[in-house]
Amino acid sequence: MDLLTAARPRERKLEPTVTLHVYDTTLRDGAQQEGISLSVTDKLAIAPLLDELGVGFIEGGWPGAVPKDTDFFARAARELTLKNAVLAAFGATRKVGVATDKDPQVRALLDSQAPVVTLVAKSDIRHVERALKTDGAENLAMIRDTVAFLVGEGRRVFVDAEHFFDGYRYDPDYATNAALAAFDAGAEVVCLCDTNGGMLPNWVSDIVSELRERTGEGILGMHAHNDSGCAVANTLAALDAGAQHFQGTVNGYGERTGNVDLITTVANLEIKYDRRVLRGGRLDDATRIAHAISEITNISPFARQPYVGASAFAHKAGLHASAIKVDADLYQHTDPTKVGNDMRMLVSDMAGRASIELKGKELGFDLAGQTEVLTRITNRVKSAEQQGYTYEAADASFDLVLRDEVSGGLPEYFTVESWRTIVENYGSTGDEAIAEATVKLHAGGERIIVTAEGNGPVNALDQALRHAVEKIYPEIAKFELIDFKVRILDQEQGTDAITRVLIETTDGVSSWFTVGIGPNILEASWEALIDSAVYGLIHAGVKPVA
Amino acid sequence: MDLLTAARPRERKLEPTVTLHVYDTTLRDGAQQEGISLSVTDKLAIAPLLDELGVGFIEGGWPGAVPKDTDFFARAARELTLKNAVLAAFGATRKVGVATDKDPQVRALLDSQAPVVTLVAKSDIRHVERALKTDGAENLAMIRDTVAFLVGEGRRVFVDAEHFFDGYRYDPDYATNAALAAFDAGAEVVCLCDTNGGMLPNWVSDIVSELRERTGEGILGMHAHNDSGCAVANTLAALDAGAQHFQGTVNGYGERTGNVDLITTVANLEIKYDRRVLRGGRLDDATRIAHAISEITNISPFARQPYVGASAFAHKAGLHASAIKVDADLYQHTDPTKVGNDMRMLVSDMAGRASIELKGKELGFDLAGQTEVLTRITNRVKSAEQQGYTYEAADASFDLVLRDEVSGGLPEYFTVESWRTIVENYGSTGDEAIAEATVKLHAGGERIIVTAEGNGPVNALDQALRHAVEKIYPEIAKFELIDFKVRILDQEQGTDAITRVLIETTDGVSSWFTVGIGPNILEASWEALIDSAVYGLIHAGVKPVA
Repeated sequence: MDLLTAARPRERKLEPTVTLHVYDTTLRDGAQQEGISLSVTDKLAIAPLLDELGVGFIEGGWPGAVPKDTDFFARAARELTLKNAVLAAFGATRKVGVATDKDPQVRALLDSQAPVVTLVAKSDIRHVERALKTDGAENLAMIRDTVAFLVGEGRRVFVDAEHFFDGYRYDPDYATNAALAAFDAGAEVVCLCDTNGGMLPNWVSDIVSELRERTGEGILGMHAHNDSGCAVANTLAALDAGAQHFQGTVNGYGERTGNVDLITTVANLEIKYDRRVLRGGRLDDATRIAHAISEITNISPFARQPYVGASAFAHKAGLHASAIKVDADLYQHTDPTKVGNDMRMLVSDMAGRASIELKGKELGFDLAGQTEVLTRITNRVKSAEQQGYTYEAADASFDLVLRDEVSGGLPEYFTVESWRTIVENYGSTGDEAIAEATVKLHAGGERIIVTAEGNGPVNALDQALRHAVEKIYPEIAKFELIDFKVRILDQEQGTDAITRVLIETTDGVSSWFTVGIGPNILEASWEALIDSAVYGLIHAGVKPVA
Repeated sequence: MDLLTAARPRERKLEPTVTLHVYDTTLRDGAQQEGISLSVTDKLAIAPLLDELGVGFIEGGWPGAVPKDTDFFARAARELTLKNAVLAAFGATRKVGVATDKDPQVRALLDSQAPVVTLVAKSDIRHVERALKTDGAENLAMIRDTVAFLVGEGRRVFVDAEHFFDGYRYDPDYATNAALAAFDAGAEVVCLCDTNGGMLPNWVSDIVSELRERTGEGILGMHAHNDSGCAVANTLAALDAGAQHFQGTVNGYGERTGNVDLITTVANLEIKYDRRVLRGGRLDDATRIAHAISEITNISPFARQPYVGASAFAHKAGLHASAIKVDADLYQHTDPTKVGNDMRMLVSDMAGRASIELKGKELGFDLAGQTEVLTRITNRVKSAEQQGYTYEAADASFDLVLRDEVSGGLPEYFTVESWRTIVENYGSTGDEAIAEATVKLHAGGERIIVTAEGNGPVNALDQALRHAVEKIYPEIAKFELIDFKVRILDQEQGTDAITRVLIETTDGVSSWFTVGIGPNILEASWEALIDSAVYGLIHAGVKPVA
């Protein structure tokens, strides 16, 4: 019996006949997130990824209000060819007391050439009176006039009913009338916005069911924010209650706690509800697409993100590892390949031979049945972790351990004679200190001495090591240290404690993590830097020079 | 009409008569998160924060299975005094075919002295047969025997029914019998675990309601993971359906996508359901506590985290800003001060005058009404936080800022002329490096030069500074550096980034935290060391010697 098609969930499944709009607003509402600022080129790079994923609608921005959004639509018309999605332009209803066809903001929506126009409209009477500073009747007229005008111009019009849920709970009739005004004037969708994000699933469910009764056939939508941690559940609750359209953003980008995570919601619908909602159905590419988009937004991915996060299918508990090997489906809620993710075993202090074997396979070492090697590696890892190493976040260092044990030794690219760092600060704390490092090593039969300055001692060491090795192995020039983490392990003893350093290095294409420990940060960093260099050279296919 | 007490949500409210268990498992299940590794000292530092927050139960770990957890319970018995919470030890039912009183793992649970024992038990017949490799009857016997034995020894016994939901959907009767076996043997709570985290709220709601009918009066609990992005909603669904106990972790730490976020869930219950579920009710301190715990786990806080995240109440400045000032309640789902957070316009930073005034009072500075000083401090803190300082975890440094602004300057105990550190390592990485530091400063009319060796450059600097100052101010001799934390703030740039150091110093009686930042770890550490010395001398009542 398949868990995903058990009787209970099927009862909850949306009617397969209902078409469902997957409406992406990463480029508009997602860009409201603290720390995100998208250029026109960024948007032109993200849109094709959304199209590949298979969303139905891509909201590109607010032409007329935001100049670069006006440019985006102009360039999109020339440069973008979308296989699955339709572009939507976001805008507002006409201004108070202004004729629709005279409102420049509404004109700009037409000029954008977007086949869909999504109008934000007020549906909470308090916002009408206190923010818009007009009366309920004029707001309803603004909705009717603007929708009718744009429909008359041949556009598909969706209406985002702002603060709908708060408004409905304060004055159900006014909120309902705002929705009815939009439908009456020809709106195809009225999307109910939990603008402040504070709803809970039961509340959403009750309100959408009630509204459904009062609005008849028009398509209702859900626009959720995650302020109470329920954005995904609120969206599912709205769809269960009869909504047929939802808006979300990739990686849950958005103002405050963010918008609903579009991929999590889609994955729940396709995998748990057994509903195909993506056009072209590229859910199995979701992880790559989510990460590609985070490269463009330059927001580091959240490891715990459902379905696509780096940790989403990572298992630590060593006691389960052996069982997971046999019966993976008993230990994960779905098959990670359905969203283009992978199961990962974390080598932790609970590491058993089974998890080492799995981890080895992941890194391309087939250790199946090699009991003796496995035992040796397991013991080495255990004692290393007792000393303070952690391999769960340092795949490259773990790769070197495996390689060393499996092939009896690592390539000797260089041998270090000595290293030294000096940091001095003359004068008050305010001034900048000077940091320099000297590295002496032997490589390719030469004795190499390099002194480098750096922004701090670790950076100076990194520079000196790189330049010294570069003389014999130029490949190392393209490695760059991109992340550096320090943890003091036994805090009772403060700076007398063991220091653990994790560094991430990239060659511009991929990146790898190494770990080092020591009584002080420089020794720990040095060890991690050496691992990083050796791993990088091995994987660049470089042979040691005698 | 108050949104939070509108008719609809009230219908959904839990009966006020029902007592609800808030059970924290940050120290056990939370520690399963990739990248988290908690020392005994970490756990002893986190537990009091959980107790302050007001959780009812703190699950400390698995004594007998994890050696450092055995130590934790031993030290907790001596060192921890909890005002609100009760300690729980996590463990498993007896082994297959082993007599309960002969099972060392069960013995270890007794030896932990924890008043509550939480037993993980299998309730999915497939796991019983494939992972446990025994039959359904023996598994039920294992549950009955272990519960009865521990109850007989005077423990309160909770049972975590592992994989309960998947198990129930596969074989409802067996899962139900596992729950009944636990209750029959005297278990106080049967906590239903969505171990793989794939449930959706409707499914949880249906299963808990059905089970409620079949198990009668015993307390049911919910243990949710976030793999489908619905952990909070699943927990609320279980409570709505009659559960009276839930388990969660601070900051949603946990394996894969994490456990349910305890603070988000509690905030929803207290604020949206209007239910008081915390003992001592310190929800208004939740943000500080969540961030303090992330300093200990050394996992950077997630800005978009509901309620306590740095962005949770951040609004784009601009057209709404003024409206928000007038009518804040129209633009946020709740009052941020209810969870100790602040509303922010994105141009500004965390610090608001109100929170500064509050913090000042906490430190013994009455700033009420001193608008000009308050503004000056707020601006200084804002610009400092933009540079990378954080005062949340560095009360002593914040105390110095207040003192400086309030009394126009700090006592000048000494002035630094220069400092230098040298770290050298001759020979391979294995050998120990030598670290030394030289500090030149002026105090009591003398020019003092001290060179000290240390276990690493920071330790050497600490030693040299302490010995130099000691010549004039012997009181400093009893200060000891007991904790040292480093965070790289802009991880995009690796070692070129800003480094933030937090140190904890003790005089043997109390301890204080100071912060320093800089382009490298030594400059940042130096600043924190200076703050620590000055704060310590001030609070020892030492007067500067001219």
